[in-house]
Amino acid sequence: MSSIDDIVPAAIENTAGAPERRRRAGGGRGGDRGKGRKAPVTLRYRSILNTTDPSMIVTEEGLEAIHDASLTVLEETGIDFMLSEARERLKAAGADVAPGSERVRFDRDLVMDLVRTAPGPFTLHARNPERSIEFGGRNIAFAQIASAPYCSDRDNGRRTGTQEDFRNLIKLAQSFDIIHMTGGYPVEPTDLHASTRHLDCLADIVRLTDKPFHAYSLGRERNLDALEIVRIGRGISAEQLESEPSLFTIINASSPLRYDAPMLHGIIEMSARNQVVVVTPFTLAGAMAPVTVAGALVQQNAEALAGIAFTQLVRPGAPVVYGGFTSNVDMKSGAPAFGTPEYMKAVMAGGQLARRYGIPYRTSNTCAANTLDAQSAYESMMSLWGLVQGGGNFIMHAAGWMEGGLTASFEKFILDVDMLQMVAEFLTPLDTSPDALAMDAIREVGPGGHYFGTAHTLSRYETAFYSPILSDWRNFESWSQAGQPTTFDHANRVWKETLASYEPPTLDPAIDEELDDFVARRKGEGGVPTDF
Amino acid sequence: MSSIDDIVPAAIENTAGAPERRRRAGGGRGGDRGKGRKAPVTLRYRSILNTTDPSMIVTEEGLEAIHDASLTVLEETGIDFMLSEARERLKAAGADVAPGSERVRFDRDLVMDLVRTAPGPFTLHARNPERSIEFGGRNIAFAQIASAPYCSDRDNGRRTGTQEDFRNLIKLAQSFDIIHMTGGYPVEPTDLHASTRHLDCLADIVRLTDKPFHAYSLGRERNLDALEIVRIGRGISAEQLESEPSLFTIINASSPLRYDAPMLHGIIEMSARNQVVVVTPFTLAGAMAPVTVAGALVQQNAEALAGIAFTQLVRPGAPVVYGGFTSNVDMKSGAPAFGTPEYMKAVMAGGQLARRYGIPYRTSNTCAANTLDAQSAYESMMSLWGLVQGGGNFIMHAAGWMEGGLTASFEKFILDVDMLQMVAEFLTPLDTSPDALAMDAIREVGPGGHYFGTAHTLSRYETAFYSPILSDWRNFESWSQAGQPTTFDHANRVWKETLASYEPPTLDPAIDEELDDFVARRKGEGGVPTDF
Repeated sequence: MSSIDDIVPAAIENTAGAPERRRRAGGGRGGDRGKGRKAPVTLRYRSILNTTDPSMIVTEEGLEAIHDASLTVLEETGIDFMLSEARERLKAAGADVAPGSERVRFDRDLVMDLVRTAPGPFTLHARNPERSIEFGGRNIAFAQIASAPYCSDRDNGRRTGTQEDFRNLIKLAQSFDIIHMTGGYPVEPTDLHASTRHLDCLADIVRLTDKPFHAYSLGRERNLDALEIVRIGRGISAEQLESEPSLFTIINASSPLRYDAPMLHGIIEMSARNQVVVVTPFTLAGAMAPVTVAGALVQQNAEALAGIAFTQLVRPGAPVVYGGFTSNVDMKSGAPAFGTPEYMKAVMAGGQLARRYGIPYRTSNTCAANTLDAQSAYESMMSLWGLVQGGGNFIMHAAGWMEGGLTASFEKFILDVDMLQMVAEFLTPLDTSPDALAMDAIREVGPGGHYFGTAHTLSRYETAFYSPILSDWRNFESWSQAGQPTTFDHANRVWKETLASYEPPTLDPAIDEELDDFVARRKGEGGVPTDF
Repeated sequence: MSSIDDIVPAAIENTAGAPERRRRAGGGRGGDRGKGRKAPVTLRYRSILNTTDPSMIVTEEGLEAIHDASLTVLEETGIDFMLSEARERLKAAGADVAPGSERVRFDRDLVMDLVRTAPGPFTLHARNPERSIEFGGRNIAFAQIASAPYCSDRDNGRRTGTQEDFRNLIKLAQSFDIIHMTGGYPVEPTDLHASTRHLDCLADIVRLTDKPFHAYSLGRERNLDALEIVRIGRGISAEQLESEPSLFTIINASSPLRYDAPMLHGIIEMSARNQVVVVTPFTLAGAMAPVTVAGALVQQNAEALAGIAFTQLVRPGAPVVYGGFTSNVDMKSGAPAFGTPEYMKAVMAGGQLARRYGIPYRTSNTCAANTLDAQSAYESMMSLWGLVQGGGNFIMHAAGWMEGGLTASFEKFILDVDMLQMVAEFLTPLDTSPDALAMDAIREVGPGGHYFGTAHTLSRYETAFYSPILSDWRNFESWSQAGQPTTFDHANRVWKETLASYEPPTLDPAIDEELDDFVARRKGEGGVPTDF
């Protein structure tokens, strides 16, 4: 990991290189409150470098203890691979596959030899090249919430999702540069039939956003359909697709210590074609994992290493991400808890593990709140603190996540966008050039004056600071006269303004037509089985 | 600065050394919701070590550029010391004092020679020795909000403060171990006459809390009265007081580049007696300081170094703290903004400067919100992020601060206490002992099971995780049936429960009587002049 003295020049290049990058997304927006929101006019947040050095939450010795214990788990207890094809491949590679069972045990050298072929940083390609994303190193990229069964907004309340909700949330993701990709279906559109839902949803995603996207691993036919749709969307050949990772899939372990058949099919289809596999155990300490954070991390690491090893067995060098999702439960109710101190520790330790293996690190912006109150903000901000200081590279559920993932909230989406932009601004290098040190202005003003009217101030005041989307900085009297609006009120207004000003990205009509044809053909064939 | 490998053992000792430290403040509290809050039964949060390494936000080169520029400001532009006694002392020490003006210019070697005699870590003594506080090094200590003209709670709204409000807020500070000291008057009790207010308030503080406290530097008589009250409260001699710093004062520069007479009197009286001076410029970028964060830091550092140098001129080795309070303004309105990305950067850079000089670092938990909404939480959490990763040692306004310091909120106090406790839990070392790695539990459960019933879980579940005071982790249905309470609702309930169960700390009746006598005598003398 390079030091701040190396990274700051790179980060300055990153945020200030092109002239348009100097324009501020938030600049002046606060002043437009209630007059309709301007469309984003900036590339400022299209790529973000983490200028802070990762924080260490466990000692080197502690890290090695977790690493060693997880290899012992894979060696002695083993892990279930619930697909014979996967077990056969593993057995051929030298793993110990118990006859008549799904259990696979790995010699620790076998695991590490496979993990070692995983690449470091790589690029995830979008159909718009300007939206392609770097994974790993100092990069941080944010994906919208995925897979919520419910959605909610203040006007219409909490409800199961429909295609309209799905589309609106995708449109919101397209509207902010700080959201670098969608992460799946932000809400499950339950009015679409399960056998063809993926066709409708992925075609919608290609049309409504030009950012990279995700394919669910819920049966290999869905993976294959998604691979074809991303190829059509980019207008490239299968060969080019294979040389340019353009689609990612989240592979969750069925913790503890199992990978089910759809997930293993997902690895087999995606890794074989050099697409991105994000291996993510979901290890809730006290439920599906030991009640101690360290114990949960041992299990997380065992599951992650086994999944990563399998991707590399399928195709050495296939792009893969180390995912961590260790949190705790509320031991009084068993309910999952998120954005907790224990979550922060687990996120940071997960980063130390991922960096130990030289693999990009996936984590999440979580909260367990039921409404857009202070809890929703502090749990998410603690998640962001943990993942930024923990060196997270790829952040799932970065905007919109409520109720531990059960609900995609339109207002929470805007709150998260604002918080993510503030994090990005925080990570912008602090300019200490002679001009920024302001010695002339200090000489000019001297003791007892003020800086409102100096040339130094006047030439900078419009762009000097981040203008938040939601923060209400009026004094108490003005704020009271305006009806004492809360963050919830402002977020409700902003998502509606954003949707009203949404413009779809351009799409080649030939691609649009090819997409139509493909979806129609596959629907004609009946879609995919739904009995997985 | 020691590494994590050195600090973790110390932190484990810190939080787990005494048996009672292993008990959790929050443990089980959530389950008592609505049944009345238990009194705190723990020493867990009495002293907190920052186990994370400080983050660098500016390069070494950038840090030196700020340092050099600030010395150039003191050399060329100079700073106004608005008290002839101070100027005479400075002139005698070799500073360039312009005849017929208040301007003082410092040779850079003179500044640094004086700053160099400042001590590193030191102890601030409380009347209860268990409440004494370590300043500097890896320690973090939190002081309650100070100096708000208004207070507010949901039941009674926003109002000017009274003695009753003042007393209630002091009682809240006493009720939570995570609040290590009071920081002044949490709200100004405007029903007490200004000439004797300090006597009533300080006597109240000695009686209502056994934690360290602050004396305002608003005229030297007030400093002298406070010194006598803290001496009486501790039941010690003037000589012992002088060998054991027991009182602190905040010295604000009148930015830009001025120290007024009451502040300079404060330094003279307090430093001469070896009491703690916290030098804190208040440098709002774009108002009283340059519009760039780096420029504001140059000015902050010039003012801080001048103030620190003066403390050391008064008494070499007197305990002193480097205070940073650089934030930005809303350039559309000129209103101060807090908890912003720019604030985070300034806080972290301030920490780098303080560590460069080897002086304990003071910063603040800030927000500009008008109510207990998401904004109040994200701005405060961003402040906490900045100050923890920035290596803050002494945190003013840690609980209760709203509206940029204009209001002390009873609900925000509870929200902050919960957030501070979560920060403290985050900073508790992650246990990677063999027992915590849970290998036996993982072997026992194996693939596909769960951990709810294992011996490893059952022996730990009551204390495994932090139980927040406010977070509502019920599922949406249960939460809805309970009336959809927000964090604001929970905080409103908790502060009332806390006040209802408040118990004053013990105080020797002889001390109580001596305190009474002193206050009566000084009131009889008419208190202090109020024309400062």
